[in-house]
Amino acid sequence: MKTLGYYNGRIGEIDEMTVPMTDRACWFGDGVYDAGLSRDYHMVFLEEHIDRFFRSAGLLEIEMPVSKRELSELLNQLIRRLDTGNLMYYMQVTRGSDTRNHVFPSSPANLWITFKPKEMDDGTEPVKMITLEDTRFFHCNIKTLNLIPSVIAAQRAREAGCSEAVLYRPGGRVTEGSHSNIHILKDGELRTAPADNLILPGIGRAHLLRACRTLEIPVREEPFTLEELFAADEVLVTISSQPCGRADVIDGRPVGGKDEQTFRRLREYLVHEFLTDGQ
Amino acid sequence: MKTLGYYNGRIGEIDEMTVPMTDRACWFGDGVYDAGLSRDYHMVFLEEHIDRFFRSAGLLEIEMPVSKRELSELLNQLIRRLDTGNLMYYMQVTRGSDTRNHVFPSSPANLWITFKPKEMDDGTEPVKMITLEDTRFFHCNIKTLNLIPSVIAAQRAREAGCSEAVLYRPGGRVTEGSHSNIHILKDGELRTAPADNLILPGIGRAHLLRACRTLEIPVREEPFTLEELFAADEVLVTISSQPCGRADVIDGRPVGGKDEQTFRRLREYLVHEFLTDGQ
Repeated sequence: MKTLGYYNGRIGEIDEMTVPMTDRACWFGDGVYDAGLSRDYHMVFLEEHIDRFFRSAGLLEIEMPVSKRELSELLNQLIRRLDTGNLMYYMQVTRGSDTRNHVFPSSPANLWITFKPKEMDDGTEPVKMITLEDTRFFHCNIKTLNLIPSVIAAQRAREAGCSEAVLYRPGGRVTEGSHSNIHILKDGELRTAPADNLILPGIGRAHLLRACRTLEIPVREEPFTLEELFAADEVLVTISSQPCGRADVIDGRPVGGKDEQTFRRLREYLVHEFLTDGQ
Repeated sequence: MKTLGYYNGRIGEIDEMTVPMTDRACWFGDGVYDAGLSRDYHMVFLEEHIDRFFRSAGLLEIEMPVSKRELSELLNQLIRRLDTGNLMYYMQVTRGSDTRNHVFPSSPANLWITFKPKEMDDGTEPVKMITLEDTRFFHCNIKTLNLIPSVIAAQRAREAGCSEAVLYRPGGRVTEGSHSNIHILKDGELRTAPADNLILPGIGRAHLLRACRTLEIPVREEPFTLEELFAADEVLVTISSQPCGRADVIDGRPVGGKDEQTFRRLREYLVHEFLTDGQ
């Protein structure tokens, strides 16, 4: 198969799959998801993604229809059906199916899985970004399907010829990208927003912090501002499909490029970690 | 038919209908909706609901796949298939179907419609409510499918044996209910939150303001606080399925009940308006 879509036991190419109109994803975006990359049929950092997936579901009080182990086994069975082993694996759970009604239904949760071809981006090429006000809700620590503000931000970036939008709350505090975490290097130190309800605790972010500890790069988990972003030595980007990238232009102004050495050390460490996971 | 689900031309009972897994409702909640009641096959205030539906879609830059007139004609054809004429009519448009990718797809938007039996609530019985912090995004003026905070709020109300949650922003400013607008009467004046990005400009709310003008009840469109809510002479609730209701208990404390006469005048006016629309 070129792609795979799974829904409560049914399987097919993603664009041939259907789901019930009564799934609460359809009316409320009432669900959570997680996603990562596979390399040669090995799902990289799978345990961490499954842990976060279950944590997101728990925070929304969605009862998982499978155990962590069952999910892992199911994913490992399904991935074998794909024509290539370099994929994005994606899993989603929604709060059951019922007549449209805000309150929780009594029906069990629905499990969705997809696989589609995707290659890891090793971060060699720097990216261009824009800044946008962060108008999202205050549950950004949960990986939910309520993603309209991220959709709009990604679209604005695309229209500006950029690949990502850096979001900031009123007052100028940088939170994260529309689908990535954003960090800065300044005077040899890594600054990253604290893992509160304003950002998603990225798995790439966790690996970056761990890499800093190993490489003895000091880390400060404190909010930073737009001003500090533009004055940074390097602007780093982490996302599950890119272990460690960086930006060279934000809002048309050059940024970063002043601590190439630290960036390279981190990038090489993290790309190596990605490529050797499970070996 | 007992219920009706429509999706891009296909029709069936709602719980037998399916939609493509690639519909952007499934991944992003990327769509908008509107809903109202019908009485004996007449969709009450339909033109206003269609106007707001198109306005919501426009604010999210979703290109409607039908004109207002075509939609009205379609709804009027479909409603004839139902066994009863007292229904909730619901329409939804989502930003096309495509591989999961945040940026806008090139595919056309998808049109969803449902009908299910529902009777108008004339507001005779007062309701019990709770208060909750409003943690939603800053696009509450658009009737989107990103409804997780409203789902959680409605569930919390249900668990407390109540029918609605009144939301307030940090600092105590009351915004609206999880699926209704909230207003207060104090010293003969109606207070209601201004129609900014923190509340949905309810059609019930618009009718209430118009009723006040006709009945010469002064209106102040200014934010009010939790404190003012608890001290109000009456706490009014508007929602498309209830022209004018009121609360008698919030967070277990008695509220309102001090200006029965004004409430009754408004309620009778609005219920009459609902019952005679289109005649």
